[in-house]
Amino acid sequence: MTDDIALEKKVTLLSGRDFWSTESLPEAGVEGVAMADGPHGLRRQSGEHDHLALFTSDPATCFPPAVAVGTSWDVDVAARIGAAIGREAVAQGVDLVLGPGVNIKRSPLCGRNFEYYSEDPHLSGVLGAAFVRALQAQGPGVSVKHFAANNQETNRQTISADVDARTLREIYLPAFERVVREAAPATVMAAYNKVNGVFASENRWLLTDLLRNEWGFEGAVVSDWNAVVDRVAALRAGLDLEMPGGNAGRGHEVLAAVRAGELDESVVDTSVRRIAALDARRSVHRVDVDLDAHHALAQELAAECAVLLRNERNTLPLRAGVRIAVLGELASQPRIQGGGSAHVNPHRVDVPVDEIRALAAAHGSSVVYTAGYRLDEATPDELREEAVRAAAACDVAIVFAGLTERWESEGVDRDSIDLPAEQVALVRAVASAAPRTVVVLSNGGIVSLEPWHDDVDAVLEAFVLGQGGGRAIAELLFGVRSPSGHLAETIPLRLQDHASSLNFPGEQGHVRYGEGVYVGYRQFSTFGTPVRYPFGHGLSYTTFVTRSLSAQVTGPDTVTVEVEVENTGERAGKHVVQVYVGTTAGPVRRPTRELRGFTKVELGPGQVETVRFELDRRAFAYWDLDADAWVVAPGTYAVQVGPDAHTVEVSTRVELSGDVLARAITLDSAIGAWLEHPVIGTPTLRALGFANAPISDEHLAMVKSMTMRQFITISGLDLPVARLEELAATSRTA
Amino acid sequence: MTDDIALEKKVTLLSGRDFWSTESLPEAGVEGVAMADGPHGLRRQSGEHDHLALFTSDPATCFPPAVAVGTSWDVDVAARIGAAIGREAVAQGVDLVLGPGVNIKRSPLCGRNFEYYSEDPHLSGVLGAAFVRALQAQGPGVSVKHFAANNQETNRQTISADVDARTLREIYLPAFERVVREAAPATVMAAYNKVNGVFASENRWLLTDLLRNEWGFEGAVVSDWNAVVDRVAALRAGLDLEMPGGNAGRGHEVLAAVRAGELDESVVDTSVRRIAALDARRSVHRVDVDLDAHHALAQELAAECAVLLRNERNTLPLRAGVRIAVLGELASQPRIQGGGSAHVNPHRVDVPVDEIRALAAAHGSSVVYTAGYRLDEATPDELREEAVRAAAACDVAIVFAGLTERWESEGVDRDSIDLPAEQVALVRAVASAAPRTVVVLSNGGIVSLEPWHDDVDAVLEAFVLGQGGGRAIAELLFGVRSPSGHLAETIPLRLQDHASSLNFPGEQGHVRYGEGVYVGYRQFSTFGTPVRYPFGHGLSYTTFVTRSLSAQVTGPDTVTVEVEVENTGERAGKHVVQVYVGTTAGPVRRPTRELRGFTKVELGPGQVETVRFELDRRAFAYWDLDADAWVVAPGTYAVQVGPDAHTVEVSTRVELSGDVLARAITLDSAIGAWLEHPVIGTPTLRALGFANAPISDEHLAMVKSMTMRQFITISGLDLPVARLEELAATSRTA
Repeated sequence: MTDDIALEKKVTLLSGRDFWSTESLPEAGVEGVAMADGPHGLRRQSGEHDHLALFTSDPATCFPPAVAVGTSWDVDVAARIGAAIGREAVAQGVDLVLGPGVNIKRSPLCGRNFEYYSEDPHLSGVLGAAFVRALQAQGPGVSVKHFAANNQETNRQTISADVDARTLREIYLPAFERVVREAAPATVMAAYNKVNGVFASENRWLLTDLLRNEWGFEGAVVSDWNAVVDRVAALRAGLDLEMPGGNAGRGHEVLAAVRAGELDESVVDTSVRRIAALDARRSVHRVDVDLDAHHALAQELAAECAVLLRNERNTLPLRAGVRIAVLGELASQPRIQGGGSAHVNPHRVDVPVDEIRALAAAHGSSVVYTAGYRLDEATPDELREEAVRAAAACDVAIVFAGLTERWESEGVDRDSIDLPAEQVALVRAVASAAPRTVVVLSNGGIVSLEPWHDDVDAVLEAFVLGQGGGRAIAELLFGVRSPSGHLAETIPLRLQDHASSLNFPGEQGHVRYGEGVYVGYRQFSTFGTPVRYPFGHGLSYTTFVTRSLSAQVTGPDTVTVEVEVENTGERAGKHVVQVYVGTTAGPVRRPTRELRGFTKVELGPGQVETVRFELDRRAFAYWDLDADAWVVAPGTYAVQVGPDAHTVEVSTRVELSGDVLARAITLDSAIGAWLEHPVIGTPTLRALGFANAPISDEHLAMVKSMTMRQFITISGLDLPVARLEELAATSRTA
Repeated sequence: MTDDIALEKKVTLLSGRDFWSTESLPEAGVEGVAMADGPHGLRRQSGEHDHLALFTSDPATCFPPAVAVGTSWDVDVAARIGAAIGREAVAQGVDLVLGPGVNIKRSPLCGRNFEYYSEDPHLSGVLGAAFVRALQAQGPGVSVKHFAANNQETNRQTISADVDARTLREIYLPAFERVVREAAPATVMAAYNKVNGVFASENRWLLTDLLRNEWGFEGAVVSDWNAVVDRVAALRAGLDLEMPGGNAGRGHEVLAAVRAGELDESVVDTSVRRIAALDARRSVHRVDVDLDAHHALAQELAAECAVLLRNERNTLPLRAGVRIAVLGELASQPRIQGGGSAHVNPHRVDVPVDEIRALAAAHGSSVVYTAGYRLDEATPDELREEAVRAAAACDVAIVFAGLTERWESEGVDRDSIDLPAEQVALVRAVASAAPRTVVVLSNGGIVSLEPWHDDVDAVLEAFVLGQGGGRAIAELLFGVRSPSGHLAETIPLRLQDHASSLNFPGEQGHVRYGEGVYVGYRQFSTFGTPVRYPFGHGLSYTTFVTRSLSAQVTGPDTVTVEVEVENTGERAGKHVVQVYVGTTAGPVRRPTRELRGFTKVELGPGQVETVRFELDRRAFAYWDLDADAWVVAPGTYAVQVGPDAHTVEVSTRVELSGDVLARAITLDSAIGAWLEHPVIGTPTLRALGFANAPISDEHLAMVKSMTMRQFITISGLDLPVARLEELAATSRTA
């Protein structure tokens, strides 16, 4: 296709036609595609356009945002949302949906955490892949974003995320890798930031070596909006399509570079072919969407996501025939999503207090409502006093607390995880006045539950649930449904307990990922730092027991895990089985445990089910810096199942043969490296004479750090140098 | 001197003659110098030699090691030890003393922490400089070590300390810098490890650009023993003298490199001149040393170092006429120093239990002693039971607990800060049996006081005090002297609370200093992490009040601080005045406070003294990565005086004009950088129209992260691009 088209024409395809579509090139049969933001619902702007949702968009269904999908721990939730958005995209003529975001929640402060699934890469990747498969099955393509290491909003357009290779591979890249390998997204969006000093959009290692050559990505790489600084460098690195384009497009720079002989025309041709291939995502015919059905779906799925954190004295579900005080302006002005490019213009929004009134009527309960605080202005004292009076006169008070989009939006990070002070004051005042107090939280990123947590009886963390959240919350409160959401992110006792606090949001152009792989629960469980609620935590109205865990090695470093789950309570409910793996084998320290499998099962009272997981070798591997490869260390691995990342309910072990690494040794290698070598280790022990005359552990520890050359000189022993040189040579050919 | 000597001759000078001396070259008039280890006493080996003290050395005075000098917070202690070691060096014919070590205690686990002063660079540098000045004033030279970032023993010979520039400059280098600038050491010893991937011994930036060109060092750089991997690369980097030499010397490699034209002969000449210049440190005539006087000095100075951590119910000093039970084998087999190259063969050692008996007799008290545990074998149950019986029958029990050199030595790091389990068991058993319990701790690095701290009445942390420690401890217990030591290192509640735990001791050849400048109290005070005892803490038998703090700006970013101290108790004592500085000014986050001045004052009861500190601009500066320079940010600085790094007793503020940095701005700079620019900031605000129509804080926060180029495109506003380009050009010439 590209051979007979003039270069001037071809380069026009390398930038968008305008803010929301790619260029057409009739002579090449390229029609171009239309895009819209849409990780949890479409933001198609048929009028004025922008990338921060300052202008309105066409009405669409606002499904639960990624933060809520993360807490559902349910691939079906992700898939059903993906499919529904796919249908709405076809209906609105959108060929490419910008989403999902599978970045890792490195810090609770990241302003865009509501758009991301989790602090865990496995959970993020599995949910993201399910969403992408389902959406693309409807026809349109997706753009998985923001590739990569875009874990903050502060200075996102200029900052360098300085991350070591192991941390990138084990934490920040796996979700992208899974989506690419398992769901073949039409496009990947390069992030604004630099990765280790090089803009993601100009990072050839990221966009070509890793994404295409290693992971096999065959789609197009798209820039984040206005992210490209050097168009030619970006193209060379593997960034095909610069967005938004229009006047901002810089095809002329590419043209000039080719003409100056600085860029091979074949590079242009390759990108042009990939961009032209997006036409395959164009819908042949429109479909109609039943928006009422989508609203019902949004309600149903929202109920899968809310997390019941605390429920003392079985305060929830609400009993029938009680006097309920609903307090807090968020009950009448619900927070359903975050701000910025992901902002959907919902065609309908459930209001929690209205839904509570409706269900209360059916349960013979009464409801009074008062705002208690103001979201957009200072709270008058009388308002809080009125709320406390209502609390004193009720059987149960339900306080809606949380954050608005003012605090949580694309483009800006938070600087605290505290609730607004006047909401905290309201919660505490209500808790001391009401017989029972329930707090319902609405927030995109986690909030601190201090210092009021112990004052209240129940906490339902609803995060942001989309347009059906109001109904879902009411149904959960009244027990129409049982809560089944689980935290996809740790709730710490103090923000400062997060190791990322040492380096967030960075300074002078750099943010050092100094905590390495110790992100989220990997930090808290490994270092024993107490938290308010661990990753994975979530209560139900029924109870579950997990038992009879078995793990069988089925092949080279692959394991089948089976475990039995029983609903031991008196009502139906859903349980999330969480499978973690941990080991002390190998040359690098590993987190105490890492999530390697999960599934959500629905069980009636007394019902038992055996669930099965196939763990591949990646479930046991670490990224080896020296080998520049995934390595399974030979040794023992704990396989653990528990209700959260800090609690082991059942545990077993497997022995894996792993990878035997014959690293190249020289006289300047540490003696420890000699002794640990699979081929020359034992002969070295003999050559050094340690085999016959064992040395003390303390002495050995000291010797291990020395290089062989130093030991030969320092020890004063008459060591067989020629033999050692021979062994070193052997190691290098092993 | 070098011109007329054959190259073959000259290169012989570049390596040692043998383990402990440099080469002579009579035709050039070079006699060579003799060396010995000796940071707290000489380790001259006139017989068999080695660098880990496996063989014995000639008797010498073992003064308080650096860990104790650090807790003295007293430049006189450092200086008097330095002078005494200098005298012993002259007496023993040692021309170059290998020490002091001024590395920072990054982790409590570092096996060599007993050889280092502190977790704080100011304290380390001031004490190190005092030691060096005093020692060199006696004639011999020193070798300041281990330059640089040698903060662990594990894999020290191969590991790379990966540290960012700001952290190096603010934490790991200042002590070296102060010693070099203020005390002109004869030599600096290059460390084993790599710094950011390059061996310290081959690191031209470290050994030449920084050490010589920036700091003005004029002495010779010596290798750590057997540290040199590539002799030619090391020479080129600025490493003059390779040790130990003898057969291990590699002058022939240098010779070959010059002959092959790969190395300029002038490089050889320069190093030869520096090595020859060490002859100036040769003593012309021997002196005699009064070893009894040195022992008395060792006793006197040891008493300045021990830290009284806890003293409930005024348990100390011991009352007269009481029954004392001394328990713990460390009371009879004292731990006075650490293992490895710093190990001194003391000519005499005070035994604590003997000294306690002697003083008890004078106080009409009785003493029983039992070992309670065994240091070198498992403790029989009867031994502990005997100790508990003794405790039950006494008025006060003194338990000696701690670590032996088996746990703490050069060449190996600890993996825990816990006391041995059987010592913990003894402490707890004694504490429940005895009316009062005092714990005396002997350890080189800090140990955890958990879980027994609250069980005991008093804790005297004696660290390792050298050969006079036994007497010093007894005098402090009986109140012959009042304790005046203060922690030079935080005692955490849990080892894992240390941010360094995330990255210690590293893996696969790298240790990432991921915590940046948040080392020691800088971490704990900034992030509010609770500790057992903070840096700077130490009790006395009297009390002090600090008041009337004033701070006057005396010049460009220099400040004079005055504060009044009163001894408000009933006996004489010494108080350490600690001056901290903190600020929120500038583009980088700073620790809450940093030690910038200290002094120890001796006051009689009721006596008042005003102490004065001159703070130079470095006391207020941070290392600016972009400017590659020390920068004082314009703004407000808190000047605080308190009894430790977590407690402010008196505080005041100064306003500093600071450095106005006109950074170069382009259209690809973040808008935040435009607006903060001292020259174009305000015009930019006007050009963007924000001056007339102010935007909300939230919107501004969002806009600040964008580059100007992105904002021009995204905002849709009709911005004066030409004017902005003009402003950017102005910034670059400002």
